[in-house]
Amino acid sequence: QSSVTMWGIVDVNVQHFKAEGNGSVNAIGNGSLSTSQLGFRGSEDLGGGLRANFWLEGSINPDNGTGRTTNLNNQPSGTGTAPAGTQGFLFDRRAYVGLSSNYGELRLGHDFVPTHYNSISFDPFNANGVARAGNFTFSGSSNGSLSTTITASNSVGYLLPTNLGGVYGQVMYAAGENQSSVANPDDGTLFSGRLGWTNGKFDVAAAASHTLFAKTATIGSFTHQNVGASYNFGFAKLFALYNRVNVDVLAGSVRKQSWELGATIPAGPGPGRVRVTYANLNDVSGSKLLNANGSARSGNDANMWGLGYVYDLSKRTALYATYASISNKGGATYAVSGGPAPIAAGTSTGIEAGVRTSF
Amino acid sequence: QSSVTMWGIVDVNVQHFKAEGNGSVNAIGNGSLSTSQLGFRGSEDLGGGLRANFWLEGSINPDNGTGRTTNLNNQPSGTGTAPAGTQGFLFDRRAYVGLSSNYGELRLGHDFVPTHYNSISFDPFNANGVARAGNFTFSGSSNGSLSTTITASNSVGYLLPTNLGGVYGQVMYAAGENQSSVANPDDGTLFSGRLGWTNGKFDVAAAASHTLFAKTATIGSFTHQNVGASYNFGFAKLFALYNRVNVDVLAGSVRKQSWELGATIPAGPGPGRVRVTYANLNDVSGSKLLNANGSARSGNDANMWGLGYVYDLSKRTALYATYASISNKGGATYAVSGGPAPIAAGTSTGIEAGVRTSF
Amino acid sequence: QSSVTMWGIVDVNVQHFKAEGNGSVNAIGNGSLSTSQLGFRGSEDLGGGLRANFWLEGSINPDNGTGRTTNLNNQPSGTGTAPAGTQGFLFDRRAYVGLSSNYGELRLGHDFVPTHYNSISFDPFNANGVARAGNFTFSGSSNGSLSTTITASNSVGYLLPTNLGGVYGQVMYAAGENQSSVANPDDGTLFSGRLGWTNGKFDVAAAASHTLFAKTATIGSFTHQNVGASYNFGFAKLFALYNRVNVDVLAGSVRKQSWELGATIPAGPGPGRVRVTYANLNDVSGSKLLNANGSARSGNDANMWGLGYVYDLSKRTALYATYASISNKGGATYAVSGGPAPIAAGTSTGIEAGVRTSF
Repeated sequence: QSSVTMWGIVDVNVQHFKAEGNGSVNAIGNGSLSTSQLGFRGSEDLGGGLRANFWLEGSINPDNGTGRTTNLNNQPSGTGTAPAGTQGFLFDRRAYVGLSSNYGELRLGHDFVPTHYNSISFDPFNANGVARAGNFTFSGSSNGSLSTTITASNSVGYLLPTNLGGVYGQVMYAAGENQSSVANPDDGTLFSGRLGWTNGKFDVAAAASHTLFAKTATIGSFTHQNVGASYNFGFAKLFALYNRVNVDVLAGSVRKQSWELGATIPAGPGPGRVRVTYANLNDVSGSKLLNANGSARSGNDANMWGLGYVYDLSKRTALYATYASISNKGGATYAVSGGPAPIAAGTSTGIEAGVRTSF
Repeated sequence: QSSVTMWGIVDVNVQHFKAEGNGSVNAIGNGSLSTSQLGFRGSEDLGGGLRANFWLEGSINPDNGTGRTTNLNNQPSGTGTAPAGTQGFLFDRRAYVGLSSNYGELRLGHDFVPTHYNSISFDPFNANGVARAGNFTFSGSSNGSLSTTITASNSVGYLLPTNLGGVYGQVMYAAGENQSSVANPDDGTLFSGRLGWTNGKFDVAAAASHTLFAKTATIGSFTHQNVGASYNFGFAKLFALYNRVNVDVLAGSVRKQSWELGATIPAGPGPGRVRVTYANLNDVSGSKLLNANGSARSGNDANMWGLGYVYDLSKRTALYATYASISNKGGATYAVSGGPAPIAAGTSTGIEAGVRTSF
Repeated sequence: QSSVTMWGIVDVNVQHFKAEGNGSVNAIGNGSLSTSQLGFRGSEDLGGGLRANFWLEGSINPDNGTGRTTNLNNQPSGTGTAPAGTQGFLFDRRAYVGLSSNYGELRLGHDFVPTHYNSISFDPFNANGVARAGNFTFSGSSNGSLSTTITASNSVGYLLPTNLGGVYGQVMYAAGENQSSVANPDDGTLFSGRLGWTNGKFDVAAAASHTLFAKTATIGSFTHQNVGASYNFGFAKLFALYNRVNVDVLAGSVRKQSWELGATIPAGPGPGRVRVTYANLNDVSGSKLLNANGSARSGNDANMWGLGYVYDLSKRTALYATYASISNKGGATYAVSGGPAPIAAGTSTGIEAGVRTSF
C-alpha cells in the first residue's frame, strides 16, 4: 500500500569561529558537508509515460534537535522566529505534488527557486559550510530579508524533460497571496527561470529570479542572476560562478556582484578530495546608499578563500574538515556561515570538522 | 521489529477567490480534495481477537511546508498561533493508542469528535475545499472559537464492533483538564456520540456533541447535532446533511441551522465524477443577539452552491476542479474555505484546480 | 537505498491528581510507562569493525498531538514555550551522528547526559510516571531551570566499547556556544561522565555532571551526582539510587540529597509485575537560603512512596496502573509527575492507568 521512500542526512561537526572585534565561538554545528534533513518522496507510474510525484523534505538541526522555519508568502511578513528550542520539524526545503511525462514535469507547492540550483551546482562546497559561495549571496547584508533567495512557497514550477541531449531548465511562478485590496498586492510574487547544458564533463547554466516588493527604505524588488560552469578534468573538477544581486530600495539600488573560482581535487590517503575556493564580492550600489558612518556602501567589498578535505568512508558516510576566511572592506561585515559578524572591515574565519551520514 | 504503516496525502491546487467589498486573491492552496497529511499507524494481534492499535496522523501544508496547530485542552486557551512560517509538523488530526476486540474498540488520546464523521461522510465534497458544507458549520461566526468542532484532546473513545449487521456507532468523553480550584473547572469537557446504519448502498447516521463552557459574551456551552444520509443509486450518489449548532452566550443562544443536498455523479471522458452541492444556513439566534450595526443576528442567513469535477488518474492520484459561491444576507460574512471574508451580506466565491496523490 | 529503522511508542493513560490546598485534576496523560516517542535510526557497516550510526528520536504527546521542546544552548535562554497547541514534533530526546568500533563509540549532537542513564536504570519506574524518582531530582524547585538535567545540545560524547567484561561507561562535553565577548562565555558548558559494571544479575554505576553558569540569585553552576545499583534475585529485582544535586547561587549552595529503594516483583494473573518504590529527599542547602516566609530552605524535605502494576499483553503492549504519594515538609512543594503543586508542606498524590504500545 505504501510506496514511499524515506531518506535522511545527519551531519554534525565541531566548529571554531573568530570574528574580528567580536571575539570567538566554539560550537557544535551541523550540515556543513550536506544539509541535515529528513524526507519522504514517491513516484507512481500512471501509464503512458505519465507519473505522479510527491516530495516532502525538511531540514533538521541534529546539534540540538530542532527543525527550521519556512516562509508562508515569500515576503518578510511570512516568516518569524519561534521561541528558543521550540522550532518543530517541518518541510522547509521542498513540499510539492506534481506530474511528469516525456514533456517535462509540473510541480505545485514549496520548492527551491531555480537560481538556487546554480548556487549548489557550481560551488565546490555545494552551498554548505563555512566556505560556501553563499556567504556573499545568501546574506541580505542589512538591506532587508530576501525571502526568496533559496526557496519559494505557493509556487507552480515546470521543468524540461531529461531527454533533450543535455539541455535542462525550469521556470517557476510563486504567489505572494495578498488580497487585492491591500496596499501592495504584488509583494512576494516571484518569477524565476534557469537554462543549462551538460555533456557529463562540462556543465553550464544561467538563471534569474525576480521578486516584486514595493520600495521601502530597506526592501524593494529583488533580482538575483547567476551563471555558473564546471568542467571535470578527471584529475580535478573546476567550478566558476558569477552572481548579481539587486535590491531596489528607496535610496537607490543595492547591487552586489560576486564571482567564485573553485576546484575539487581527488587526493590523499584513500578515497578523498581536496576542495578549494576563492570568491570576490564587489558592491556597486548606488551612490546614495550609505553606511551608518556616512561612507559609501559601494566600498563594502569583501573576498574569501576556503580550503577543505572530504574523506569518504563509504558512499553514504564521510569525514570532512574545512577552513575559510573572509576579509571585509569599508562597512562590510560578511561572515563565514554559522559564525558571528565581525566589525566593519574586519576578518571572519571559521574552521570545522565533522561526520556526515545519509540513509 | 517494526510493524508500522506510514502513509500520506499531498494535495496542492491553484485558487482564485473573490470577496465582495474586499477584493480578490490568487493563491496556491492545499488539501481541497483530501487533507494533506502524513501518518504512522499499526495494529498488533494479541491473540483471542484482541488487538493493540496506534494511530499518529498530522496535517501538512505542502504549499509552504508547515504543519497545523492542535488544541491542548478543548478550550480557546488551548490553542494559539505560532510566529509566521514556524509551525512545525505535529499530530493535530489523530494521535491515540487503544485496544480492539469483538466487543469494540477503545481509544485514548486525540481523535476526531463523533459529529465530525457525519460532516465528512454526508458531504459530496468530504468536508474539504471551497464547496464543503463545513463553510457553514465549522465557522464560529464571531461567537467564540468552537474548539471541539473537529477534534478533541484528552479523549477516551469507544467504538462499536464492526459485526453488528451494518449498525455502527461511537461515544467519546474528553477532559478539559482544569484544576478544580479554578473558576470554571468543567470548561472544555466534551461528551459526544454517534449512531448509524448502512447496508452498503444506504447510509444514515445521527450524532451530537456537547462541550461545557462557562457563559461569557462570546462563548458558552456548545452543542453540535447533525444527521446525514446517503444513497448510492449507481448512476449517482445522493447526500443529505442537517446540522444544528448552539452556543449559549450571555446575551442568549447563538443558533445556526443548516442543511445540504448534494450528489456525486460518475461522468465524463474517463474515470471521473461530477460533484454538486446546495446548502442553506438559517440563523435562528435569540432576539437579543445583535450585529454591530444593531440589526438582529437572526437575519444572518446564507446559502451556497458548489460544482466540481474529479478525474481519477489512478486509485491514488486525481485531478480536480471546484467552484463555489456563497450568498450572505443581513450581517452574515460566510466565506468559501480558504478565501477572505466578504463584507456583510456580500458574496464569496472561490475556484480551484489541483492534483492529489496519496501513498 | 534506505537502511533506516523507524520506531515509536504510544502510551496514553487516565489520571487523577490531588494537590493539597490546590484542588484536584482529572486528565488524560501520556508516557507514564514509557515516554511516547517517534524515532529514526540506522547503522552502516564500514568494514574493519567500523560503523557509522545516526539516531533521531523525539517525544510526542498523543493526548493532544504535540511534540516537546529542546534547549539550544544548555542554558535557560535556550528554551522557551511555544504558543498553546503549536509545539511541533522535533528531536528533543536524541539527535546525533557518530562512529563506533571495537574502541568505543563517538557521538556528535544532542543526547542524554550520562547521569540521566542512572535515573532511568536504577528506578523501578524507569524515570516515567507519577512514582518516578525524578520527582525529586528533575525539579529545579524554584532555584533556576536546570537545563542539562536530562539532555544536552551541542555535545561530543564517547562511550566505552561493549566488550570490557561488563564494564561500561561514557563521557560527554557540551558547548554553551556563547561568543567570547559576552559577559559569561562559559555558561552552558557541560562535563559529564558515567562508569558502571554489570554481570547480568548485578548492575552498579556512578555518574556526575557539571554545568557552568555564572552565579545569580536563581542559578549558578550545577552539579548532579548519582550512584545506583540493582540486583535481580529472580523472584524480585531490587533497585537503589542516590542523588546529589548542587546549585551554587549567590546566597549559597542549594543542595538536595535523595535516595530511593524500590523493587519490581513478577506476580499476578499472567505476565505481570508489581512495582514499588520509596524515596526520601533531604534538603541540606546553605543556611542563608530561605523560603519566602523566612524559614530555612534546608527544612524543605519530602518523601514519596509509589505502587504499581504492569500487565504485559505482549512484548510490545502493556496495561499499567500506578499510585504515588509525596509528603512535603517545611516549604517544599514537590509534586508527582504531571500533577499540580500542593501548598507548602502539602501532600501530592496521583493515580494513573493506561495502555502502552510500541513499534
